[in-house]
Amino acid sequence: MKMLINVPERVVADALRGLAAAHPDLLTVDVERRIVVRRDAPVAGKVALLSGGGSGHEPLHAGFVGPGMLDAACPGEVFTSPVPDQMVRAAAAVDSGEGVLFVVKNYTGDVLNFTMAAELAEDEGVQVSTVVLRDDVAVSEDGESAGRRGTGGTLFVEKIAGAAAEEGAPLVRVASVARRVAESTRSFGVALSACSTPARGAPTFDLPPGELELGIGIHGEPGRERRPMMTSGEIADAAVAAVVEDLRPDSPVLLLVNGMGATPLLELYGFAAEVHRVLAERRVAVARTLVGNYVTSLDMAGCSVTLCQADEELLRLWDAPVRTAALRRGR
Amino acid sequence: MKMLINVPERVVADALRGLAAAHPDLLTVDVERRIVVRRDAPVAGKVALLSGGGSGHEPLHAGFVGPGMLDAACPGEVFTSPVPDQMVRAAAAVDSGEGVLFVVKNYTGDVLNFTMAAELAEDEGVQVSTVVLRDDVAVSEDGESAGRRGTGGTLFVEKIAGAAAEEGAPLVRVASVARRVAESTRSFGVALSACSTPARGAPTFDLPPGELELGIGIHGEPGRERRPMMTSGEIADAAVAAVVEDLRPDSPVLLLVNGMGATPLLELYGFAAEVHRVLAERRVAVARTLVGNYVTSLDMAGCSVTLCQADEELLRLWDAPVRTAALRRGR
Repeated sequence: MKMLINVPERVVADALRGLAAAHPDLLTVDVERRIVVRRDAPVAGKVALLSGGGSGHEPLHAGFVGPGMLDAACPGEVFTSPVPDQMVRAAAAVDSGEGVLFVVKNYTGDVLNFTMAAELAEDEGVQVSTVVLRDDVAVSEDGESAGRRGTGGTLFVEKIAGAAAEEGAPLVRVASVARRVAESTRSFGVALSACSTPARGAPTFDLPPGELELGIGIHGEPGRERRPMMTSGEIADAAVAAVVEDLRPDSPVLLLVNGMGATPLLELYGFAAEVHRVLAERRVAVARTLVGNYVTSLDMAGCSVTLCQADEELLRLWDAPVRTAALRRGR
Repeated sequence: MKMLINVPERVVADALRGLAAAHPDLLTVDVERRIVVRRDAPVAGKVALLSGGGSGHEPLHAGFVGPGMLDAACPGEVFTSPVPDQMVRAAAAVDSGEGVLFVVKNYTGDVLNFTMAAELAEDEGVQVSTVVLRDDVAVSEDGESAGRRGTGGTLFVEKIAGAAAEEGAPLVRVASVARRVAESTRSFGVALSACSTPARGAPTFDLPPGELELGIGIHGEPGRERRPMMTSGEIADAAVAAVVEDLRPDSPVLLLVNGMGATPLLELYGFAAEVHRVLAERRVAVARTLVGNYVTSLDMAGCSVTLCQADEELLRLWDAPVRTAALRRGR
């Protein structure tokens, strides 16, 4: 698999150098320590939001650092958790005294390291609250596994809780908004191809021509079911069914039609039309739609559908201004 | 090649349905006639900008329709020019009486059809001015070919001339700004893989493992030179050399580090770091940087570099607010 890289070992550092060069007005990047911080941090009187996780899901999380969303992101190696030291340093850099919310995707390494970091940061006097994303309905919650993975729903939590923090809400309130979003959000992903990590240089699993994988995660892991290739409409039927039957929304939803990285926007918008069709058939009203590559899996072809059941407050916070590398609205 | 589509014949119509569903606040979409129009068009007292071209380059052009950029986009079939009838109808829909600027990429079919459309629109009383993009330095200007292709530079023209129109500049002035941008902009593209069109379902040319193509266009056509695989740094050396030696900028530039569609953002930001390194070595100052998939070639892996030498006025117009599906800033 050909890649636009120098050497696999430097992929994350190179990307952080590029991020620093492209967004000097917005970000302060510590390439060596792997910390991306909102340029004007710490913002006086404001609760800070901090997230992180393995690299390879860009623009998540560093592309969401800026006014109205995250204050800091801690990227790990590709598909590898960042370490507690990164998180503690980042928390200290963005804490204004109002505390820090950790936004964590539910993977064993991430949860472990963020938990440790929260303890260390609190030892240093930083008040920490944590929200864990478990939006992927493809993973069963039978108690045998580590539970549902955090995927596309992370964007909704970071945007909406970020807006609450920007408005000056205290930590307990920002955390409560974040948890409300997390509890109201579900995702389902589909892969048409496996992704290739720089270190491996080859697809992480074998997906033959003419087959797709339903219930895919964002780390190159296989999904829950392999099927002969389906049309865009059939994929929308399956993905929306999985999400809606779990979430059972009874009010308008925010919709994210997300690309896994290598699916052209032309196809993704066509898929968005099918998702809207299925939601209409199921009498689920859509309040807002976002289409694009936001929570990706390197060069994987495929898509995911995320729904967030939003009440009026969450909708207002979703619509609030945001200024990050990957998501901008208003001001 | 697996694709997220229903049937190849419906790819463009499906994408337009999705665009309409996702952006009801921003766009009016005539799916049957393939016309995407800014929702509040015609805007009284404002010159309108209209562009179009083959589909497969998304978000170009429809993703750039909205306040501060285009008033209308006319998508053709994949890699196929739109027809004059689309353009004439779109021009009539967006003309407020102040005239319409056609933004055209230099391909034989596009130029022919936009020229015919300009005549027809003028017969109907719409004043039309045209700017043609020829930014791709990979094509020689020896007089034998149709001349240089329009590629990534289109984004700069649409954004900057769109801002001038939004400020109320008359048609002659908007056209003059657009031509100034076009003349000050150069691009160079590199493919790591060929793209596959929905109709063909297979790569448009053969690019073996271990080789890349320098000087690639955005329509799946081969480039000007095939080479053994290069590092990100070596690709930046080659691409920036081609652009800078043609443009010879003597003041700060706007930089677009563009993905061709399937290259992960992680790699694209790493490449942006190398482009910044090469520009610094060549003593070219960078005023602004945009990194992302903006002028694509379906599922092609690769990238392009576009530089626009911007004076203070062009820089101010680049920074002006814009609200489109794919590019937002301010307000």
